[in-house]
Amino acid sequence: DDVWDVVDDHHLEGVYPFEDFRDALEFTYEIGELAEREWHHPDIQLEWGEVRVEMWTHKIDGLHKTDFVMAARMDRIHEAYAPE
Amino acid sequence: DDVWDVVDDHHLEGVYPFEDFRDALEFTYEIGELAEREWHHPDIQLEWGEVRVEMWTHKIDGLHKTDFVMAARMDRIHEAYAPE
Repeated sequence: DDVWDVVDDHHLEGVYPFEDFRDALEFTYEIGELAEREWHHPDIQLEWGEVRVEMWTHKIDGLHKTDFVMAARMDRIHEAYAPE
Repeated sequence: DDVWDVVDDHHLEGVYPFEDFRDALEFTYEIGELAEREWHHPDIQLEWGEVRVEMWTHKIDGLHKTDFVMAARMDRIHEAYAPE
């Protein structure tokens, strides 16, 4: 149940499922706040029941440890939204 | 300076510019709240300095007056973020 894939040896793509739009919206805001705190900003696509995240380290135009740490933090945040 | 286009005679696509990630994030949350209130949910793509919105009426798989009303409300919300 890993939501993340490495794409083109360049970026991470993660797709998180949600019950509805509200949860997807709140999750988007939470990971946006995380991005601001860490000053590491992914692209985020929000739609009904799904949030898709693309993330890489712009300075090296590729993946750095920071991306994987951020991905793990997003997973932790998502746990609070997962259905029982 | 209309941000909206009608695409494929099927949906609206709007691209809003922002100064930074923080403003794009706050705008995303605001239009998400609007979507919940109106129960009309667009797809939203958030990245540094830009929010892209795709919107149509799922019941008719096309554009309805509601979409244009929502677009105008998003424009109004965006005005608060526009640089002087």
